[in-house]
Amino acid sequence: MAESMTLLWCSGSPPCWRVMITLEEKNLQGYHQKLLSFENKEHKSEEVLALNPRGQFPTFKHGDIIVNESFAACLYLESQFKSQGTRLIPENPKEQALMYQRMFEGLTFYDKLDWVIYYKWLVPEDERHDSALKRHKEALTTELKLWEGYLQNVAESSYLAGDFSLADVVVFPSVAFAFRFGLSAERYPRLAEYYNLLKDRPSIKSSTPLDWFEYQQGFEVLEDV
Amino acid sequence: MAESMTLLWCSGSPPCWRVMITLEEKNLQGYHQKLLSFENKEHKSEEVLALNPRGQFPTFKHGDIIVNESFAACLYLESQFKSQGTRLIPENPKEQALMYQRMFEGLTFYDKLDWVIYYKWLVPEDERHDSALKRHKEALTTELKLWEGYLQNVAESSYLAGDFSLADVVVFPSVAFAFRFGLSAERYPRLAEYYNLLKDRPSIKSSTPLDWFEYQQGFEVLEDV
Repeated sequence: MAESMTLLWCSGSPPCWRVMITLEEKNLQGYHQKLLSFENKEHKSEEVLALNPRGQFPTFKHGDIIVNESFAACLYLESQFKSQGTRLIPENPKEQALMYQRMFEGLTFYDKLDWVIYYKWLVPEDERHDSALKRHKEALTTELKLWEGYLQNVAESSYLAGDFSLADVVVFPSVAFAFRFGLSAERYPRLAEYYNLLKDRPSIKSSTPLDWFEYQQGFEVLEDV
Repeated sequence: MAESMTLLWCSGSPPCWRVMITLEEKNLQGYHQKLLSFENKEHKSEEVLALNPRGQFPTFKHGDIIVNESFAACLYLESQFKSQGTRLIPENPKEQALMYQRMFEGLTFYDKLDWVIYYKWLVPEDERHDSALKRHKEALTTELKLWEGYLQNVAESSYLAGDFSLADVVVFPSVAFAFRFGLSAERYPRLAEYYNLLKDRPSIKSSTPLDWFEYQQGFEVLEDV
């Protein structure tokens, strides 16, 4: 099955990582993959645009089926390979509701991270304001505290909603992203614990981009959050 | 079943409308509902915060299960009441993939609408720039043209992915939202056709907020998009 799949991705992208973790969890190793460069604008290349009119990573193809939105790809793969590999959506109604709830709160979390980490890329120089960046940082602090609280409540299992699920698939890359950009493990101990418990999970470890933790200048942007 | 459900909502909110359409489609009429006021900040009331720490509409409860994110609530309801009412996720893999893809692109669509419609609410006065609003309008135009193209391709069925599905549940309220705020039916004929074909669908008609189309000043913000 995996031989009929192709993933075009770039390193350092939480949305790409979500799809890669899902593929690993569903035992779909051996798919075709091509690492492209965001810096070189390869997401706007003809190769990507032919499959993805938005010109974004990930771009994912299964046979003649194209599904590029990362959440869509994860839900599609779980549905099509339900009984293969890890079951990523709990059956139990309460856990399932919590799973979906955390999964979609994960989008807000990622959005708030983006507004701090990529502020300079998202906003042209003459439209930037210290007051705006300060507000984005405050919103991110509020968001991070919410997740600290959620993880306090689920400490016994270490996952966000019962067993490992799509909620972890989509949220973990954002947590890793936050620490990569300098988030303090001391100020956010539950998030740090969650990160440490999950980072060596086979699906995550084998899909972690090799250069993810190389030091790069400008990667301390979350130090004071 | 519906008697054990409670929805706290506000008028004019596409996310609330998504959940209401889903409840109608799944034959879950008769749920408890309470219309609250966003203008009076009732989303930050104790009643809402007790169920929803983010203080947002919709806030949704089923028995002792709370699921507030609108996409989460729609997916949860479809999963729990799969064989009741309309089947909202296609079985066919190709249609299912397209359904998830459009559903999540619908989030981008809604986000781009928000950045134009609510620019003044999202950005404090001394941080506003004409250049930023112009860029948001251009991004929205690009987005709207993408959807015009999608609808061109599915004209025979009038829905976004095969039969009526969760893709329509989440995207229709944004389309209605756009026309409410002055979008030109002449410049976006496919979106206008889609809107007209779906607006009288029972689940949509019965859940359309009564004041949705009352004239209000400032509701022409999309006229030049």
